[in-house]
Amino acid sequence: MATPQEELGIRIEEALRQRFAERTAVAETYGESFASLWRAAAEHALGGKLIRPRLLLEAHRALSASYGGSVDSVAAVNVAADVELLHYAFLLHDDVIDGDLIRRRRPNLIGVLAAGRGDEPGDADLHWARSSAILMGDLLLSTSLLGFARARVSTGTRVRLLDLIEHTIVETVAGEHTDVGLSDGRIAPDLRTILAMSTYKTATYSFSLPLRAAAILAGASPEVEEHLAAIGRHLGLAFQLQDDILCVFGDAALHGKDPYSDLREGKETAIIAYARMTSAWPHIEGRFGSLTLSDDEAAAVREHLRTCGAESYAQSLVTDELAAASAVLRTAEESRSISAEVAATVRSLLARVESRRA
Amino acid sequence: MATPQEELGIRIEEALRQRFAERTAVAETYGESFASLWRAAAEHALGGKLIRPRLLLEAHRALSASYGGSVDSVAAVNVAADVELLHYAFLLHDDVIDGDLIRRRRPNLIGVLAAGRGDEPGDADLHWARSSAILMGDLLLSTSLLGFARARVSTGTRVRLLDLIEHTIVETVAGEHTDVGLSDGRIAPDLRTILAMSTYKTATYSFSLPLRAAAILAGASPEVEEHLAAIGRHLGLAFQLQDDILCVFGDAALHGKDPYSDLREGKETAIIAYARMTSAWPHIEGRFGSLTLSDDEAAAVREHLRTCGAESYAQSLVTDELAAASAVLRTAEESRSISAEVAATVRSLLARVESRRA
Repeated sequence: MATPQEELGIRIEEALRQRFAERTAVAETYGESFASLWRAAAEHALGGKLIRPRLLLEAHRALSASYGGSVDSVAAVNVAADVELLHYAFLLHDDVIDGDLIRRRRPNLIGVLAAGRGDEPGDADLHWARSSAILMGDLLLSTSLLGFARARVSTGTRVRLLDLIEHTIVETVAGEHTDVGLSDGRIAPDLRTILAMSTYKTATYSFSLPLRAAAILAGASPEVEEHLAAIGRHLGLAFQLQDDILCVFGDAALHGKDPYSDLREGKETAIIAYARMTSAWPHIEGRFGSLTLSDDEAAAVREHLRTCGAESYAQSLVTDELAAASAVLRTAEESRSISAEVAATVRSLLARVESRRA
Repeated sequence: MATPQEELGIRIEEALRQRFAERTAVAETYGESFASLWRAAAEHALGGKLIRPRLLLEAHRALSASYGGSVDSVAAVNVAADVELLHYAFLLHDDVIDGDLIRRRRPNLIGVLAAGRGDEPGDADLHWARSSAILMGDLLLSTSLLGFARARVSTGTRVRLLDLIEHTIVETVAGEHTDVGLSDGRIAPDLRTILAMSTYKTATYSFSLPLRAAAILAGASPEVEEHLAAIGRHLGLAFQLQDDILCVFGDAALHGKDPYSDLREGKETAIIAYARMTSAWPHIEGRFGSLTLSDDEAAAVREHLRTCGAESYAQSLVTDELAAASAVLRTAEESRSISAEVAATVRSLLARVESRRA
């Protein structure tokens, strides 16, 4: 028998599979090339861990139980699928912007499309693959937004859902825009900017969006929604900071990224922003952002980042953000705006982020 | 006093200006860099000729008059603004895909953003500008879709509008995808594919979308909408074929594009597809798609395209498409599904396309 977790995963996957099947059937009428783009996108989008839609449905279940109504979980499953489609649309445009052909050690959609003809991809192959990814991102962004617009919910609920998705898209894109500006030297890499960027780019759509959508779909008040939004922001920032720490100091065999890739790409993280303010920076500066950095050199940079206090500083930020999420949760519980059941769900999420190793 | 045409333009511009003002105000909270991206996009988006929203409002006025109701023109003006935002979103992603920095002899948004720091733009400047254009395209696509989702119309009307915008986006993107596949050598450049691509990429959103949206907003039947969709397809294909003809054979001083740019870029058009099937092709093939083609060489290619019959073939297609649009109009008029007033509006549109010189 499927566990409740497995059952959630199955329902989300079914909804996603159906969405892609419908879109691919339409795409067939425009020729094989367009249909095969949809099939390739479906394969990649269905391979994810579904963290965001799972979070939405878990929170929705807890919230619905505490409001005692027989809430429509079909609408929640569909919106959860739309949240995953939005995530994948963002990933595609992110990969185009970053020039990435690999994600988690496997070719991403761009890598697959570029390699379609065997040999090392040439300029026209990369152009074809990246252009296709821009266009598929547009299609999935549209599909996600149309899903929100067509949700079978009351008018009031739909108005709230549309405001939420609009806010989410603007904030996420603002974060991505800042990230690009940092890497292209257009925006100064101070700590405050980097923490805001991490919150906007990751926390807003990966944590706040699923929690807020769950609240809206369960008919919770704007006050509950705001508490969950704040919890999502803190948890999401902690999660992103953990990512930054893991990429530099973590076990590459576990996290699956290229070890030191952030150092080679010159990614402006909170770790780097802290190190810039220390006397260790002159030892790091010349090597940071060099794509040809050897593993030994990268290990030396890592050692500097450790001894200058950047690692423990970033870890203290993670601790602070998790504590802040807990504090919001306690306040919400004490004011009875969040039920014990919802609080338990959020605590288990908190514990999952806290104990994260990859 | 403003003419009805000027008045339409003013109302659309006001709606667009308001939309950008609202979004820019939100963007300010994410920092100067993001706000200035919105301001730059507004400046470019507001500089257009507003062909699509004007067409929507002219058709909406005629359709409303023939249905005799006091139809809400506020909703129509807003949807017209959303149609223009969709157009600009498509242009932005198109310019990223084509690597263009210029549109109608002036720097496009990418050109302006890349040149922001004075000198000849370097790799990081171009990356910043193109990434910004991808992100602004996402924002404007979302703004347009959300406008459709929030239109203050009846539920039935909104369902039809959402189906229309979904169909439009999928078909336009399918056309763009085919266009990229043609230029990257992934899709064979046969005439049928090129004509379908031109219809999907241009006619669907530039002609059929405004006409169909007008019909839906005026409460016209699906039958009327389908007639107008067909008229839009024929007119739009005629328009695109004229564009192709003008770029090769027209007066560059009038059409504003670089003369011969289509030949230098190797753009797969109906003209080229026809020429490929003639004995002139061996004289053209070696020069077609060469960015370093001199004006004299380009003029020689043009002469071959003329003598092999490609120019007159493309012109005959324009004539055929305009005749097909007229035929649909006559059928619709005879079956009384389209009123004399609507027919007059469509005829004046037909005449404008027919007499086009730039």
